[in-house]
Amino acid sequence: MADKAARHKVDFRPHFKTHQSLEIGRWFKEVGVKRITVSSLSMAEYFSSEWNDITVAFPVNIGEIDTINRLAKKISLNLCAENFESLDFLANNLKSDVAIFLKVDIGYHRTGINPIDTAFIDKLLNTIDSEARIKFKGFLGHAGHSYKCNNPEEVKTVHTTSMVVMKKLKDKYSKNYPDLIISVGDTPSCSLADDFSVADEIRPGNFAFYDLTQHAIGSNNIDQIAVAVACPIVAIHIDRCEIVIYGGGVHLSKEQLSLHAEGVIFGHAASKVSNGWGDIIPGMYVKSLSQEHGIISVPEKLIKNYSIGDHILILPVHSCMTANLMKKYVTTDGKQIDMMNSI
Amino acid sequence: MADKAARHKVDFRPHFKTHQSLEIGRWFKEVGVKRITVSSLSMAEYFSSEWNDITVAFPVNIGEIDTINRLAKKISLNLCAENFESLDFLANNLKSDVAIFLKVDIGYHRTGINPIDTAFIDKLLNTIDSEARIKFKGFLGHAGHSYKCNNPEEVKTVHTTSMVVMKKLKDKYSKNYPDLIISVGDTPSCSLADDFSVADEIRPGNFAFYDLTQHAIGSNNIDQIAVAVACPIVAIHIDRCEIVIYGGGVHLSKEQLSLHAEGVIFGHAASKVSNGWGDIIPGMYVKSLSQEHGIISVPEKLIKNYSIGDHILILPVHSCMTANLMKKYVTTDGKQIDMMNSI
Repeated sequence: MADKAARHKVDFRPHFKTHQSLEIGRWFKEVGVKRITVSSLSMAEYFSSEWNDITVAFPVNIGEIDTINRLAKKISLNLCAENFESLDFLANNLKSDVAIFLKVDIGYHRTGINPIDTAFIDKLLNTIDSEARIKFKGFLGHAGHSYKCNNPEEVKTVHTTSMVVMKKLKDKYSKNYPDLIISVGDTPSCSLADDFSVADEIRPGNFAFYDLTQHAIGSNNIDQIAVAVACPIVAIHIDRCEIVIYGGGVHLSKEQLSLHAEGVIFGHAASKVSNGWGDIIPGMYVKSLSQEHGIISVPEKLIKNYSIGDHILILPVHSCMTANLMKKYVTTDGKQIDMMNSI
Repeated sequence: MADKAARHKVDFRPHFKTHQSLEIGRWFKEVGVKRITVSSLSMAEYFSSEWNDITVAFPVNIGEIDTINRLAKKISLNLCAENFESLDFLANNLKSDVAIFLKVDIGYHRTGINPIDTAFIDKLLNTIDSEARIKFKGFLGHAGHSYKCNNPEEVKTVHTTSMVVMKKLKDKYSKNYPDLIISVGDTPSCSLADDFSVADEIRPGNFAFYDLTQHAIGSNNIDQIAVAVACPIVAIHIDRCEIVIYGGGVHLSKEQLSLHAEGVIFGHAASKVSNGWGDIIPGMYVKSLSQEHGIISVPEKLIKNYSIGDHILILPVHSCMTANLMKKYVTTDGKQIDMMNSI
């Protein structure tokens, strides 16, 4: 992804909400990454010990003004805003400078300003310009509707449409704000699209691990999925071709994926190879989850290969949600890696 | 629930996986509870500082033998088994005594021994009887299929069927094992059923908080839901009657509930009253979740009552999963309560 960003001459500001680990963050430093994205102020605080330019890609939560002030004093802090209330509150309560991205709705319709409503954008910019502590940084969008795509072509269409929206804003506002940044970067678009000429920076996160959801979209091959949960077998039910693992909703998350062949699944088993994993095992998937139990559907001809106490490697439906439930990672070399939840 | 157990002359061994809090556990001591249930060995270890009789209602994970030995030395530890491999492993590796419940499948078909297969049960009992460190405690079942019921009558049918299964086992085995315990206790059955004459102990957990899923089944009224997540408003989209909260899948969990009127929801907003909450607000519910964002559908006539920074109280779909994601509780009197995740 770093190579792709360099090739397309865009800044690479990866989203660290996926791995939530200072140590994994250092691997990004090794390929030249200098600036990062996170999804909460507490995550920004965790990473602020090693990163001095952080964007919180989430509408600012004014209730956390103390954290904002602590961070703004220490690092270059970029926040997202989309309404007057938040900007006014920041203007009245900030003790150090912050940069503001205006969050734009580029089609996902989760949040953000309607990009057609330039009268509203003008008023927000007037507010920003009149306040000493806040500075306009640019327009930030997240094409999260790419996650609903069924193939790479659909993702490219989402990306192209997002870029059209952003280009209009760039064309209109770059006269008065020549340094404004156009920031985009969902993982499907960053994995599959080829034209980033409008963008100044990309913020993909999930690509660090990828997962089954991204694979279903077409963002990655199975052999690019870089995280798995090793779940011990606690019961085997040969009569119904099911294995019970110690691995439930509190470990894998209840994120589900609907597949043609299997129906709704909560993870897929991968084959073990040396000290890692290989391809998925056809027909062997997590069919249901309760708090601590996971039920694995196992092909009849394979079930006799498994014993109580063995571990099954589960590729997650949504790696960000699964990693968030873990306390640490173990590399395929056996090294433990701390994360935010380790503390 | 303590009163109901006393009325029905069954031991009350509540499941603490719902609240995961030593302090909340003390409230149970005040009503006479002496023995508890948990769903993992790490949870047993957490509670072992204040409880000396704990059942881990999960098929024993032999990979945690060190924890088992630490606990078995310190408290009365009851484990669940359903196969020879686990029993043999325990027999060969235990350093102190443990009691074993045979986990029976009473209709949920998640895990447990087929109760008709008494030849298999006999063999397991022979193994248990021949080993010094393990002692047969009784039969444990979980009628988790009660969670798929749509009304109290269906729950009562599930419960009655479970009791028939357990009565056969009790009748057959109590001659040789006069002290054997029949342990049951999903929250829907414990809330709604009236005949516990076959049972010796009940293990409900969720009832401590209840939630929207239990309400949909008919286990509780809305005013019995004893936990809510206070989520700050970060964006308001009047045009589409939506409010964005800082409260996503990492806070509420992705547990979903399908309702006739609203479709799939991830939580319901409750009205604020003094320092707590009242009824649900009709038509105001969590319609979607991403990692940190929650999208609340809000009735048009209400949306103008809300401002950026206000908190919305969300009643969870599944309180166990939501509580598991939190780090502590705050009572309606403002007192902070630690839990297992606080450490």
